[in-house]
Amino acid sequence: MSQSYNVNRKYSSKLYKRAKEVITGGVSRNTIFRRPHPFYVSTAEGSYVTDIDANTRIDFANNMASLIHGHAHPAVNEAVMEQLQKGTAYTLGTKVEIEFGELLIERNHNFEKIRFVNSGTEAVMTMIKAARAYTGKPKIAKAEGAYHGTYDFAEISQIVKPENWGDIDQPNSVPVTFGTSDCVKNDVVIFPYNDTERTLNLLEANKDDLACVLIDPVSHRVGMFPIEEDYLVAIYNWTRKNKVLLVFDEVVTYRVTYSGAQELYPVKPDMTALGKIIGGGFPVGAIAGDAKIMSVFDPTHKIIKQPHSGTFSANPITMTAGKVAMELFDRQAVDDINNITDIAKKQIAEAAKDADVPIILTGAGSMFRFHFRHKAPRNYRETYQCPEERKLIVDFLDYLFLHEDLIMINTFACMFATTITQVEVDRLTESLHKGFIKFKEKIHSCAK
Amino acid sequence: MSQSYNVNRKYSSKLYKRAKEVITGGVSRNTIFRRPHPFYVSTAEGSYVTDIDANTRIDFANNMASLIHGHAHPAVNEAVMEQLQKGTAYTLGTKVEIEFGELLIERNHNFEKIRFVNSGTEAVMTMIKAARAYTGKPKIAKAEGAYHGTYDFAEISQIVKPENWGDIDQPNSVPVTFGTSDCVKNDVVIFPYNDTERTLNLLEANKDDLACVLIDPVSHRVGMFPIEEDYLVAIYNWTRKNKVLLVFDEVVTYRVTYSGAQELYPVKPDMTALGKIIGGGFPVGAIAGDAKIMSVFDPTHKIIKQPHSGTFSANPITMTAGKVAMELFDRQAVDDINNITDIAKKQIAEAAKDADVPIILTGAGSMFRFHFRHKAPRNYRETYQCPEERKLIVDFLDYLFLHEDLIMINTFACMFATTITQVEVDRLTESLHKGFIKFKEKIHSCAK
Repeated sequence: MSQSYNVNRKYSSKLYKRAKEVITGGVSRNTIFRRPHPFYVSTAEGSYVTDIDANTRIDFANNMASLIHGHAHPAVNEAVMEQLQKGTAYTLGTKVEIEFGELLIERNHNFEKIRFVNSGTEAVMTMIKAARAYTGKPKIAKAEGAYHGTYDFAEISQIVKPENWGDIDQPNSVPVTFGTSDCVKNDVVIFPYNDTERTLNLLEANKDDLACVLIDPVSHRVGMFPIEEDYLVAIYNWTRKNKVLLVFDEVVTYRVTYSGAQELYPVKPDMTALGKIIGGGFPVGAIAGDAKIMSVFDPTHKIIKQPHSGTFSANPITMTAGKVAMELFDRQAVDDINNITDIAKKQIAEAAKDADVPIILTGAGSMFRFHFRHKAPRNYRETYQCPEERKLIVDFLDYLFLHEDLIMINTFACMFATTITQVEVDRLTESLHKGFIKFKEKIHSCAK
Repeated sequence: MSQSYNVNRKYSSKLYKRAKEVITGGVSRNTIFRRPHPFYVSTAEGSYVTDIDANTRIDFANNMASLIHGHAHPAVNEAVMEQLQKGTAYTLGTKVEIEFGELLIERNHNFEKIRFVNSGTEAVMTMIKAARAYTGKPKIAKAEGAYHGTYDFAEISQIVKPENWGDIDQPNSVPVTFGTSDCVKNDVVIFPYNDTERTLNLLEANKDDLACVLIDPVSHRVGMFPIEEDYLVAIYNWTRKNKVLLVFDEVVTYRVTYSGAQELYPVKPDMTALGKIIGGGFPVGAIAGDAKIMSVFDPTHKIIKQPHSGTFSANPITMTAGKVAMELFDRQAVDDINNITDIAKKQIAEAAKDADVPIILTGAGSMFRFHFRHKAPRNYRETYQCPEERKLIVDFLDYLFLHEDLIMINTFACMFATTITQVEVDRLTESLHKGFIKFKEKIHSCAK
């Protein structure tokens, strides 16, 4: 399909041949892979990315939601260039890691203490280990379909299908990676998102062994809808009663409000994993939360329950870029980006209505996801895309990328940057409208 | 003890008070912690680091061995600044990740394919998961005392003591982090480094369940001596016979030769984890090795055995800095840094002889470690520092840091940069000589 668009691809196509010679599958991140080949960037600025074949596209993916101010923001770059002259990493501390820590803690009253790491994967792994270190219990519970990085415990049942997901009363623990140890599977309890009765039953059955319940409050892969408040409150109350920790993965969702999606709910997570936008475009992760629980890391204690370092953790380049990016992402900037996203969603809904296609948009704050549905999904099984639907999405995204010059996330989602204006929103709407008409028949046949 | 040196510390001391309010224990990496407080960097260039109290020190730690060209190298900075203008991360590929992949593969004939990640911890975790995905078996074997990052399987028995290390014929699997699941312990086979008979017995007893044997060929924590060739060959031959993978952790040791410490041995690791210096001062990790094994990552395959992404994996800033740093670390640069390190070791040995203290220097290439010993250790139990010795090392390093203005690694080790010249080597030797005399009595009482 994608070959049929008349797009400049000579240099990207050639480069991918070289890539395959040295990099497995030609990519270090499957995210950027597309058939027949990925495209390679020449330069980027704000919301515009130009590839090496001189195609310029509007970016609604922003490196998988990690660039809240788009590409090459001048204020971030200026601060990074100043730090570069002083070095990028030391076997000593820096003032900026403290200033950035203060800034993030000031923004969220659930964050009493913080520790920085190098990625979202490291943040979730370190947080899960901390939950075990604090409680002395081995198991974790997570939602079916939720993505939490590549730590094998966190990865269980991220990818499941009707053939292997099992009984909804007791969903199977399905490893993502071949050869995952049975013991990993057995230490992970899988529950259905937004299903209070079943979830509480599953937690109750494992209560003596559970270190934590891991929640992404607007889980992208589950369907990118905010978790239902009653459901979350029920889980929260259960964890309080049973001395199990409630930990949030806000690596993606921190962007939703000034202090994360957790601000929307009357619960207090014990710890939160952060990443993506807080790095200002550089590799980052963080764990923030309850001071007493996080004291498992404390090197001043006689017994350090969780010794923790990391060669590049809290490096001053990431801290500098992150601090500038988050200072710029103030309450006004959060309101503005959420408002322009709401305008986009409204325009898109109108375009879908006009084209007479059943589209549901889910999301929160500055992110949203498309579903070919008559009714909004509430959990992973309702969101699940059958092969026919998956193919439609790949084709639709190919059309948008190759013909309409729009970059979107491969689940069919948008993650806005503060550099998006009405101009880009109008382009997005018009392109989607054309796509809705082009794929109308297939959308109707997929929609449930 | 450290309080007694007359060092400028007003601003670092004040800053640490702020740090403790927001960061657990005041540090994101226990590595940089020292009592009563860490010091904070103002600026750094080449081998010199100046803290915020205007103390300038010579750096022999180089951010835990990660800065092969010291701080703020102009060529690295220039390339990074150019890339900064074009963006730091995209949901598309870049040419520089391919060029850098080509460069690393060209340097080592054991590397057929490569994938980039964000840290040494991620590299080791991803490699272990790949070994399981390829073999379908769950267990790994690793050396007692060896450090391989914070993935819990890789972390087992990194820190052990006579009270818990168990019988040498069957060393205990001792978790580092409290609350580590029993199943993790049971999936990790611990063997004594450089002990062929015992190691082969342990491997043999677990051969049906072993995915890989994980080796750091000059393990820092085991004692930083090169693994003995006969021993490594025996393990290699055993793995060939039993269809178990042999995987190397060269995150630290890649600096030892032009293509890693593995160049010194007649064995071919199936995969190698890289990190530290290959990032040119930025967060990095990589897995390189056999193309067929690494095809578990391949997104072009119908079944992807190990789906793998990572928001910042192969980001163009790290790739650019790494490529320039590794181009500069050519065969001549490797020879030069190894030669100046040899000169340093010789001078230090003479200084120790002159001061009449029993010091053994172990190491390889541009790194070496001090042992208060009459005889070189061969494994972790011989390297192990009793509390009295540990206190002596802390005191000695405090003396060097606070009084002599030298930064070293807290195990009492040096990791040279190419910016080290005879001037810094002479300063190092003279300062150590003073230290040897100052601590002579205690060194003699510790030396075994």
